[in-house]
Amino acid sequence: MIKYEDLDPEAPIGVFDSGVGGLTVVREIIRQIPNESLLYFGDTARVPYGTKSKDTVLRYTRQIVRFLESQKVKAIVVACNTVSAVALDEIEKEVNVPIIGVVKPGVKAASQATRNGKIGVIATKATIESNIYATYLKKIDPNAEVLGKACPLFVPLVENGLLEDPVTDEIAARYLSELMDRGIDTLVLGCTHYPLIRSTIARTVGEGVTLVNPAYETALELKALLSQYGIESKERPRLGSNKHRFYVSDDAQGFEVFANSVLKYGILSAQVINIENY
Amino acid sequence: MIKYEDLDPEAPIGVFDSGVGGLTVVREIIRQIPNESLLYFGDTARVPYGTKSKDTVLRYTRQIVRFLESQKVKAIVVACNTVSAVALDEIEKEVNVPIIGVVKPGVKAASQATRNGKIGVIATKATIESNIYATYLKKIDPNAEVLGKACPLFVPLVENGLLEDPVTDEIAARYLSELMDRGIDTLVLGCTHYPLIRSTIARTVGEGVTLVNPAYETALELKALLSQYGIESKERPRLGSNKHRFYVSDDAQGFEVFANSVLKYGILSAQVINIENY
Repeated sequence: MIKYEDLDPEAPIGVFDSGVGGLTVVREIIRQIPNESLLYFGDTARVPYGTKSKDTVLRYTRQIVRFLESQKVKAIVVACNTVSAVALDEIEKEVNVPIIGVVKPGVKAASQATRNGKIGVIATKATIESNIYATYLKKIDPNAEVLGKACPLFVPLVENGLLEDPVTDEIAARYLSELMDRGIDTLVLGCTHYPLIRSTIARTVGEGVTLVNPAYETALELKALLSQYGIESKERPRLGSNKHRFYVSDDAQGFEVFANSVLKYGILSAQVINIENY
Repeated sequence: MIKYEDLDPEAPIGVFDSGVGGLTVVREIIRQIPNESLLYFGDTARVPYGTKSKDTVLRYTRQIVRFLESQKVKAIVVACNTVSAVALDEIEKEVNVPIIGVVKPGVKAASQATRNGKIGVIATKATIESNIYATYLKKIDPNAEVLGKACPLFVPLVENGLLEDPVTDEIAARYLSELMDRGIDTLVLGCTHYPLIRSTIARTVGEGVTLVNPAYETALELKALLSQYGIESKERPRLGSNKHRFYVSDDAQGFEVFANSVLKYGILSAQVINIENY
């Protein structure tokens, strides 16, 4: 149970992902609620989660949540579709601060965007196999038809910088043709890496398909959540990169390079911690 | 120190890799020394190693070696270029059985194959950055010129089954054009996944370039090592899949599918262990 009075409005918000992809969620939070300080953890030593079993993802998530709680965060954002899909329901019961994932906000936006009820979801293998988007979408709209497609090559393509590239176009065409043939009018970018190839995906599916970016919707929901608990930061925005702190489980340098390409301002440094100790 | 008299000739040989790639080494060992029983461990929960720091790779390797020693193996084959490159020198001092990696056998074969002294090496980022192939090659032939190239997309392409595919051709052409322009006559496949796209690589570099597969050379060297210690298995080959045992840290099912595509006979099952307990 969350004790509202214990939450410090000036504490940071913990945001975590299996690796670097969650930085697209960080970017949206900074855009929409710039007053807040963030404490990000990317599990770069154990990425990717999308191919791992539920048990493993759950064990890793527990370690990360223990780390974030040790840092006295006032709320936690699960900026990882795989964790939101396979572990959030159990983790929710175990933490002492408000926690939200990226799936439910994405589902809500998709159900509002669709006109013909045919919603495509692209994500990692684990997220697609969890069937989580379909499960939640059908709760909101029992008539919605959800078409899922795992796109396992998108993450390595993004992480290797092939954001605008004929190879990425070709792979996108293969992954998305089936969804287009089946007449979707809405497509959920169900992996935090995918907004980074949003223009390739948009070009492939054409103007008739509305793209839903759960990162954007999650930042909106986070704002509402902070307000609901009365824990919005009252401090004026501080300048400089110490406002946000970044932790990784490996390869801080590689993380910094990627982070500086995703976020508009430079991050000074990321610190490596041994997450297995939590 | 290895006590020769303690090694049981009928014990299995431990073979490990960060994931599934080491199965190409298993395949070569079974071909060349079919009498031996193998005990394979694939660290599928923490794959890939090629992007991780030396400290992390070393910590993971120690856990795996402790697991293999607990299984009473008579020798260990490091079927992973990254581990061979960044951790083997230290691990060698800590184990009580003979241990070999894939790098030195590959280096030896490359130095024998080259005519113009220009040797290309393709591998993961970690192996290339370790500079290990150049270091060992220069010990054998100080005049050899070693040109390394990290090919980070090859592993995901292989793992997603794009073995014969225009996309893999295109990526291979990009990765290999620089090495070809610089006139290599020998190319080391410095990652255990790469033999699975050997024909794509051969087509790209043309007939003038000799491909070296360290898996093949490692099996040869293992045979010599067993003979040197007098620990060759004397038992007649047993039929059936219990002869070899397979362990993984996650996703046994996915491993079985991949293993059955690499090895010519079916494996019955792979068992999941929690490697963090070792």
